[in-house]
Amino acid sequence: MAMKRAVQSLLASSSTLTRNLHASGEKKKIVGVFYKGNEYASNPNFVGCVERALGIREWLESQGHQYIVTDDKEGPDSELEKHIPDANVIISTPFHPAYITAERIKKAKNLELLLTAGIGSDHVDLKAAAAAGLTVAEITGSNVVSVAEDELLRILVLVRNFLPGYHQAVNGEWNVAGIAHRAYDLEGKTVGTVGAGRIGKLLLQRLKPFNCSLLYYDRLRMNTDLEKEIGAKFEEDLDAMLPKCDVIVINMPLTEQTRGLFDKNRIAKCKKGVVIVNNARGAIMDTQAIADACSSGHVAGYGGDVWPIQPAPKDHPWRYMPNHAMTPHISGTTIDAQLRYAAGVKDMLDRHFKGEDFPEQNYIVKEGQLASQYR
Amino acid sequence: MAMKRAVQSLLASSSTLTRNLHASGEKKKIVGVFYKGNEYASNPNFVGCVERALGIREWLESQGHQYIVTDDKEGPDSELEKHIPDANVIISTPFHPAYITAERIKKAKNLELLLTAGIGSDHVDLKAAAAAGLTVAEITGSNVVSVAEDELLRILVLVRNFLPGYHQAVNGEWNVAGIAHRAYDLEGKTVGTVGAGRIGKLLLQRLKPFNCSLLYYDRLRMNTDLEKEIGAKFEEDLDAMLPKCDVIVINMPLTEQTRGLFDKNRIAKCKKGVVIVNNARGAIMDTQAIADACSSGHVAGYGGDVWPIQPAPKDHPWRYMPNHAMTPHISGTTIDAQLRYAAGVKDMLDRHFKGEDFPEQNYIVKEGQLASQYR
Repeated sequence: MAMKRAVQSLLASSSTLTRNLHASGEKKKIVGVFYKGNEYASNPNFVGCVERALGIREWLESQGHQYIVTDDKEGPDSELEKHIPDANVIISTPFHPAYITAERIKKAKNLELLLTAGIGSDHVDLKAAAAAGLTVAEITGSNVVSVAEDELLRILVLVRNFLPGYHQAVNGEWNVAGIAHRAYDLEGKTVGTVGAGRIGKLLLQRLKPFNCSLLYYDRLRMNTDLEKEIGAKFEEDLDAMLPKCDVIVINMPLTEQTRGLFDKNRIAKCKKGVVIVNNARGAIMDTQAIADACSSGHVAGYGGDVWPIQPAPKDHPWRYMPNHAMTPHISGTTIDAQLRYAAGVKDMLDRHFKGEDFPEQNYIVKEGQLASQYR
Repeated sequence: MAMKRAVQSLLASSSTLTRNLHASGEKKKIVGVFYKGNEYASNPNFVGCVERALGIREWLESQGHQYIVTDDKEGPDSELEKHIPDANVIISTPFHPAYITAERIKKAKNLELLLTAGIGSDHVDLKAAAAAGLTVAEITGSNVVSVAEDELLRILVLVRNFLPGYHQAVNGEWNVAGIAHRAYDLEGKTVGTVGAGRIGKLLLQRLKPFNCSLLYYDRLRMNTDLEKEIGAKFEEDLDAMLPKCDVIVINMPLTEQTRGLFDKNRIAKCKKGVVIVNNARGAIMDTQAIADACSSGHVAGYGGDVWPIQPAPKDHPWRYMPNHAMTPHISGTTIDAQLRYAAGVKDMLDRHFKGEDFPEQNYIVKEGQLASQYR
């Protein structure tokens, strides 16, 4: 793999010719960017935090590698910035993303590999990474179940109007009408997923016993058997699907094509009273258009754990709009997910050190090419 | 039916001999006790509130019946109390229950029928009703899907630690660790339902794609085919099942046998870190024992919409204990459920006026006998 990458690197940009010429067995500098655990780090399974560092420090250091871990990722004086020039590998997560811009890639003369502990590598400038001959890879599959479960949770929270009832319980109130007048069953409603990749399919499978009408829009149609098993109907035209849906769930990566896809015009095409759940990426939405549609009531509820910039600023409008079910970016970083993506990172580093390939579906940028979903 | 009940009434108590001797075609006084809709009553589908009165006023009055509707149900000066002496039928709901005590039954000289718009008739003194020769019936099935969906919602909210994340979003915070350190996937966990009647079965069906280990305790074992289809294992001994469960869901009626079933000792038998969801009846739990177990962390989360007395007092400990997902009694009164139980009430009144029987499963007290689940 090292030689293949070196050749590709040559093809991609002559300036990167030398920097990836490394041999198996070489000592590497690995930088991990995670969120801090602080007082919670005592939980031994909480491997995704800075303090536990995916549980791979001992393993890395015993092989002579250097392992720098930090949560300090923004700006020219950050800890991350300091290690950019000589890092060989950078590991980050979508929950506390290390934004790897073209500028940082330019500075990162020794960089070979960018690993995303989770799914979604839009925090990396993928074109710049490809041009520089870097490999970008994800731990595909490590947290797809976690995200799909969370999507169904947010659908139920919004359709059934859970939060106003919870607030009443906490505030000493009892006003059943104030909840019930806009609480519905999920049964019998039409749910459409925009994107039916790994997460979208898992969501559809979990929705099946709810007796909904299930629709999906995707670049690719499932084969007939799978479509039948999942019980969802293919929609070729996104704008034709949207007005049919009581619930819309976003399950596509953030790319140049999907950035801002749900703007004012597209939201207007949705049914009045629609519920939208977006655990994919915040920037697929036009921030203000969503806030306005929640305020007007055209969107009856918006829920998700992704924001255009993370951490989200204190004054982000999605924190304040009515009928939201927002959280920090959390759905893919349950304890179960952390254990899986930590194991995946270890496996992929091991392969990298040995010059072995990754499982094909884990590549986001390989040999100067972006994975098909990012093109 | 009128004659059958009159005969039964004679058997049950000679004092009730005359009061049920009514003939088909007689004009009835019907009293409905519902929650107020107030500013929300404008929604035409919000039929479960006082103002919309199940949408049956015109139908009843066109037949010459009198229909009194109120939310004022407590104490000797309440509107309900005023109509007790001459009401023929009282309709109430579990969400805003009219407590029909032995004392009220004694005063209700003309009473024939108590209808529960929903499921669970524990707000009626069933023994006293049986002794008085009254019929008590529910709209069985009208909101079982609504309740099962809500149970799965509360399981996900608690297992995945949704609420602290939501609070962070609202409060301008971003602390992924503060959520993630105790957030889990539902996948792979053991979920046990205490009771697997209509609602329990619907919950198990909805849980099936989550790849959990599913257990159920019930008086009756399902037939082998259904058990296989649902994918749940029968547990004969409640106390043997409890320590196996990561999640326990209560799906049994409140009876003399189940009142206080989850006391301090039984809760101690549950696994440390268990999540308990109870949308059945609040009094199945020992109130203080649940609050204490949430405070100590033995119970990692408790969620439900039922309280020992409803409306719950402002200072009820379940409003303040840590890691709860409580709401007012709401799960069975979604708009969809209201439309179904309103249609069911109309159908059963129609049968009652014509002297026809109800569907067998709707009877809670019939001819002096309690339904098997209440014995």
